[in-house]
Amino acid sequence: MSEENASQGADIAGLSISVLGGTGDQGRGLARRFALAGHTVHIGSRNAERAAKVAADLVEAESADIRVSGLTNTEAAAQGDIVIVAVPWDGHRELLVSLADRLAGKIVVDCVNPLGFDKKGPFALDVAEGSAAQQAAEVLPGSRVTAAFHHVSAVILLDPEVDQVDLDVLVLGEDREATDVVRALAERIPGVRGVFGGRLRNAHQVEAFTANLIAVNRRYKTHAGIRITGL
Amino acid sequence: MSEENASQGADIAGLSISVLGGTGDQGRGLARRFALAGHTVHIGSRNAERAAKVAADLVEAESADIRVSGLTNTEAAAQGDIVIVAVPWDGHRELLVSLADRLAGKIVVDCVNPLGFDKKGPFALDVAEGSAAQQAAEVLPGSRVTAAFHHVSAVILLDPEVDQVDLDVLVLGEDREATDVVRALAERIPGVRGVFGGRLRNAHQVEAFTANLIAVNRRYKTHAGIRITGL
Repeated sequence: MSEENASQGADIAGLSISVLGGTGDQGRGLARRFALAGHTVHIGSRNAERAAKVAADLVEAESADIRVSGLTNTEAAAQGDIVIVAVPWDGHRELLVSLADRLAGKIVVDCVNPLGFDKKGPFALDVAEGSAAQQAAEVLPGSRVTAAFHHVSAVILLDPEVDQVDLDVLVLGEDREATDVVRALAERIPGVRGVFGGRLRNAHQVEAFTANLIAVNRRYKTHAGIRITGL
Repeated sequence: MSEENASQGADIAGLSISVLGGTGDQGRGLARRFALAGHTVHIGSRNAERAAKVAADLVEAESADIRVSGLTNTEAAAQGDIVIVAVPWDGHRELLVSLADRLAGKIVVDCVNPLGFDKKGPFALDVAEGSAAQQAAEVLPGSRVTAAFHHVSAVILLDPEVDQVDLDVLVLGEDREATDVVRALAERIPGVRGVFGGRLRNAHQVEAFTANLIAVNRRYKTHAGIRITGL
């Protein structure tokens, strides 16, 4: 990747990160990695006690000093400089509608994969707005909505034995500066490269592709990710 | 990838390959690579003269002996042991309906990406059947329909300077043996790895992801592909 295209230009070291739905596996994994990278992290949950417990467990598990607090989703939305949305698809819209005022002006990173499962495995759900990310953009008109972190394996993010995470994070959005910030955030995870992946209208297939990676995981007994070649 | 999961078990060396729509860039690129790998290749087109010209040009451009003929799509469908569908999305359904009898019993590899373009760039088209691959499966009930080769760059396939093609080809389908054959076919292209990518109901996002790769190409001035990590 040429220097011009690298995301290192975005200085994000001092920013705090909130993770809505941060008690889920994906949210905990991202919270852990960003805390290890030196960010103050707020874990949000419907249940503040559960968030506090998850935050305390994360801190206790690390030998390094990390700063992780547990809050309600509402408090976390207000506190974070960057707010990651890692809630279940069921309830995604309602939660974001309720937080629109608090999220105004902020970079919001949607990483929700609207998937269903049946006896044949995973499949992509139809989304009226096109994708979870487009739904977020629709209900958060005052926020800088991006989409990213769809394909990160929670197992790998939470594994203390994995120092280098072997994947690219595709970052989608309309706002060039916001996607550059989120690419830089992705690169706070050792081994990860943040790659611009297109406009939000092309988010559906990135979200839905998680179903294919789950199919790969089942066939090959692995935790698959993707790398973009040619960069 | 463990030996059990490798596709090398499928012995495809003697099979002939037909490429419907083989005069387009993607079709020509695949035809070239499979011919260089030693397969007899039939290029199909609506216009047999044009197909013959493209076939002759491919043969002339290579110093090695390769076997490439130009036929109508109808003749090519009848001739090939494996038939690759690389036609434009517009007309995809009609062509396959007309060839259903000739394609019965064969492995059909759909590599069509239903995309639109406007001033904001590429985007995925809605497909009534869910995806081009599902449409093919619906109109070819007697064929073993798979989907693959969506993300290969025609420029790279046609470039005589590129010996190793740096990408994984995701192969989707319901028929395990057919997807193993197509994975083995993909691996006839030096550098390429064939990876099972799920059932046909998860083909839409693989087709549509080509729009994201085009966005990557535009941003980073490259010919992007993907690799699956964790294998």
